[in-house]
Amino acid sequence: MKRVVIALGGNAILQRGQKGTYEEQMANVMETAKQIVDIILKGDYEVVITHGNGPQVGALLLHMDAGQQTYGIPAQSMDVAGAMTQGQIGYMIGQALINELKRRGIHKPAATIVTQTLVDKNDPAFQNPSKPVGPFYDEETAKKLAKEKGWVVVEDSGRGWRRVVPSPDPKGHVEAPVIVDLVEKGFIVIASGGGGVPVIEENGRLKGVEAVIDKDLAGERLAEEVNADVFMILTDVNGAAINYGKPTERWLGEVTAEELRKYYEEGHFRKGSMGPKVLAAIRFIEWGGERAVIASLDRAVEALEGRTGTQVSAG
Amino acid sequence: MKRVVIALGGNAILQRGQKGTYEEQMANVMETAKQIVDIILKGDYEVVITHGNGPQVGALLLHMDAGQQTYGIPAQSMDVAGAMTQGQIGYMIGQALINELKRRGIHKPAATIVTQTLVDKNDPAFQNPSKPVGPFYDEETAKKLAKEKGWVVVEDSGRGWRRVVPSPDPKGHVEAPVIVDLVEKGFIVIASGGGGVPVIEENGRLKGVEAVIDKDLAGERLAEEVNADVFMILTDVNGAAINYGKPTERWLGEVTAEELRKYYEEGHFRKGSMGPKVLAAIRFIEWGGERAVIASLDRAVEALEGRTGTQVSAG
Repeated sequence: MKRVVIALGGNAILQRGQKGTYEEQMANVMETAKQIVDIILKGDYEVVITHGNGPQVGALLLHMDAGQQTYGIPAQSMDVAGAMTQGQIGYMIGQALINELKRRGIHKPAATIVTQTLVDKNDPAFQNPSKPVGPFYDEETAKKLAKEKGWVVVEDSGRGWRRVVPSPDPKGHVEAPVIVDLVEKGFIVIASGGGGVPVIEENGRLKGVEAVIDKDLAGERLAEEVNADVFMILTDVNGAAINYGKPTERWLGEVTAEELRKYYEEGHFRKGSMGPKVLAAIRFIEWGGERAVIASLDRAVEALEGRTGTQVSAG
Repeated sequence: MKRVVIALGGNAILQRGQKGTYEEQMANVMETAKQIVDIILKGDYEVVITHGNGPQVGALLLHMDAGQQTYGIPAQSMDVAGAMTQGQIGYMIGQALINELKRRGIHKPAATIVTQTLVDKNDPAFQNPSKPVGPFYDEETAKKLAKEKGWVVVEDSGRGWRRVVPSPDPKGHVEAPVIVDLVEKGFIVIASGGGGVPVIEENGRLKGVEAVIDKDLAGERLAEEVNADVFMILTDVNGAAINYGKPTERWLGEVTAEELRKYYEEGHFRKGSMGPKVLAAIRFIEWGGERAVIASLDRAVEALEGRTGTQVSAG
């Protein structure tokens, strides 16, 4: 029996153009659960799941902002907001998996662990906030908020101004021993949602920070911690491409981590998008993982069988 | 080594009169963590923690309401909101416990399990929503919202109108096998936060419902599931009293479950407040538990040692 960590992209929970109602999200999660249960029922893999939270934490930040303005109820900090979306999304995924397994005759519990991800307080990312979060503002409002709240704001590709927060590199998960224990016991675990709640260690104490962690890079650490054989990133495209969008565009099938690192360093993969996915895949192989996969969510089973998507190995 | 389930009241997280900022809540949770670590360090008990979420889910419902009005971002349903507060509060309690343990030389992980609580879809509570949630409204607004959203609203003791939701009786926790495994392994587990996310079983599938579950009654089920010796409810008063507020008021110290049931049935304990705490204590002893305790949060250690609060046993 092998072990796979599956990192679900945002489209597993919310599709582009949807508003983010509970019904929409639950319907998407149920579709995703079918794929995951297909994998479980094949019987070759123990499954650990992690997931993004971009649209959900974005919505929550707006909800809290409006709630503070309208009712004077304090907004919670970003670390707490991250933990809240772990509850939200983990609940939906857990319930959907339990239901789909049961429908197919398997009584197997799944459980979400609220997860803290350790980052280095000296990570250079803290000096250079780069990850846009929350709503778009006009320049004046953005600069006013920056002054009021101590935010860093930037102009985002002609679409307006946004707050940016640091995206430090994940080092590992505080709850790793708990997660490992449950995986060993054969439970389906959902962990490190949204990349985990970012915490630093300061005077020997954990402390939440206003940052976001890339969920694929955090998922890769999780894959190391649970000693996974395969790390699979499921997203809305079926793999990584070099010269993306150019006439010389080439989709990568089987590729070595070494070759992929060369492309990565040549700047083929977009920051904040395919870039961290490729880096996570490379890291997993360099750590000693057998295979890393980047593939489309709706081709999860084939991708895990090595028949589609970008398949990264030591070669 | 004995095992105790500790149900933390709202005052463990937010004090009366506070606004609900992260800083306030974290400071309270850190004080609570000291008490719990005192218990852990005495070495007589394995600890499982559950907690309320009233003020937090209330704040979140208002945030989401305002966010929907201001930004058009859909509010999530009450089951999802409950799961979100499990992430929020579980994160804070877990981090505070890990920090306090570490400060005192113990490296022990704590982890929050996002927990679903099963209720009976035929529970009479669904026909009789009784638990006030969210803001107070004037009569006109309340009735308008009731019509728009299908809410049941009631006048609440002269303070205004509020939405009421069903408070069905908890049957058990979907994630019980996971929780039991972690407790057996010696991890500190935080579970069934806010009474757990209420789910019914419908055509063999779990389904979230718009309801709230009393956290002490749910905590009692948790105590059964983990086979606890002691179930301890910590709140803002140091036990239960009969003839409360009358000249004949008498605080209960050591009391048998039988005697306590008599008082309960005579109506000595206020619904939605001391009532469910007393009922939870009675149930735990009737199930076979050794001792149930109702005591003040700041006297947790003494109370667990049987030296203060209301101490319920089979006699």
